[in-house]
Amino acid sequence: MTGISKEEESVTLELLRKKMEDFAKERDWEKFHSPRNLLLALVGEVGELSEIFQWKGEVPKGLPDWNEKEKLHLGEELSDVLLYLVRLSDICGIDLGKAALRKVELNAIKYPVNLCKSSSNKCNDEAGN
Amino acid sequence: MTGISKEEESVTLELLRKKMEDFAKERDWEKFHSPRNLLLALVGEVGELSEIFQWKGEVPKGLPDWNEKEKLHLGEELSDVLLYLVRLSDICGIDLGKAALRKVELNAIKYPVNLCKSSSNKCNDEAGN
Amino acid sequence: MTGISKEEESVTLELLRKKMEDFAKERDWEKFHSPRNLLLALVGEVGELSEIFQWKGEVPKGLPDWNEKEKLHLGEELSDVLLYLVRLSDICGIDLGKAALRKVELNAIKYPVNLCKSSSNKCNDEAGN
Amino acid sequence: MTGISKEEESVTLELLRKKMEDFAKERDWEKFHSPRNLLLALVGEVGELSEIFQWKGEVPKGLPDWNEKEKLHLGEELSDVLLYLVRLSDICGIDLGKAALRKVELNAIKYPVNLCKSSSNKCNDEAGN
Repeated sequence: MTGISKEEESVTLELLRKKMEDFAKERDWEKFHSPRNLLLALVGEVGELSEIFQWKGEVPKGLPDWNEKEKLHLGEELSDVLLYLVRLSDICGIDLGKAALRKVELNAIKYPVNLCKSSSNKCNDEAGN
Repeated sequence: MTGISKEEESVTLELLRKKMEDFAKERDWEKFHSPRNLLLALVGEVGELSEIFQWKGEVPKGLPDWNEKEKLHLGEELSDVLLYLVRLSDICGIDLGKAALRKVELNAIKYPVNLCKSSSNKCNDEAGN
Repeated sequence: MTGISKEEESVTLELLRKKMEDFAKERDWEKFHSPRNLLLALVGEVGELSEIFQWKGEVPKGLPDWNEKEKLHLGEELSDVLLYLVRLSDICGIDLGKAALRKVELNAIKYPVNLCKSSSNKCNDEAGN
Repeated sequence: MTGISKEEESVTLELLRKKMEDFAKERDWEKFHSPRNLLLALVGEVGELSEIFQWKGEVPKGLPDWNEKEKLHLGEELSDVLLYLVRLSDICGIDLGKAALRKVELNAIKYPVNLCKSSSNKCNDEAGN
């Protein structure tokens, strides 16, 4: 018993897309959800995410010194960015899941393992771009 | 035959998380993937996403006037934001799918359908926050 | 009598730099003002600035429909971005005024008047970059 | 002889505002400079600024390990943010210099020296906001 439901284990982008669509429809908010409105809302949420990290200096992986409340807050801000990103993609007619899989493949071609591992020079500069 | 594979129909956040983890591990890039490095990389990608929309004025839903190349480019930038967001969440020890489902529920409580639909006053101001 | 003081007419970047330096020194906040802390604080303020515009759709120049309170709020968010930008530049050892004058000259070379005015093709795409 | 001209010592926001206005007018770019177009262009430049810092981990004040070329590039990106901020303010009808002086005064009231210096608790959390 992990307490993690089956649904949580397999959250798809399509599920979130549908939830955001229903959410807007139920509240008659579709009129607000134009591409640039959603983009600016996304930028606003990235700002809130940045505020969490702004005075902390470097932060180790796994956030060992953060308490549960702080982690919950972080999860909320990460989610806000995700939800607007999913909604923006949908409103633009972009299949985000399909696009993301394609981008991972493009990145693998752009940064070949053998080149990027052996020579840190070029790849370090752009690591992960 | 839709040309859409089964995998693409059900892209999970967990799948993308695993792909990003493997990608970094294979290239020995884990040392670069600290929380604040990834956050700044995310901000960089949000900048590139904004550049696509910056001189266009208002843009209608579905982007009817954009050609295929422009839409492909948009899909790439949306994906870059998503992939760094997924990686940042993972490095912070946050289950992004679980957090997103929880946030949708919190939003539903914060913006009750009947209140937000009938009275546009308060809810319009913060629509979708 | 315009009600605008001489000081306001000629606000220099150097004046703001000095004010920010004194502000931090007086509060013993210099220890928080590392380059990346200030950069993330700047991103946070850009987020707050974006929130002001996020649900408004296109907005005409001069903001004719905004009331005084909204304009005052906008001025505060624009200022927050400016103040962190000035402070970040100072902490990085960059003379922002000097750099800005140089950048305007570089832009004039990059976008020659005759080329950009007559042919909208190339220049429109990157207008103002 | 410092090599710093009188003009550079006293770069005013008004000077930059005028230069940006002339720049746009000469190229007939005023039609592109709507508030939200400029805001998204600003976000794009903040992204480019972030990219400079994204893979560096924590960076000490004064950037002692950066070479001249890197500092020049940083100055350009800081300037791009500033120039769009100045232009955005102008197009919105906001006197940025006046607003910035006012905001510094508001911050001084919000964060009183004696309170913020003696007790780091509350003020550290929001240091510099």
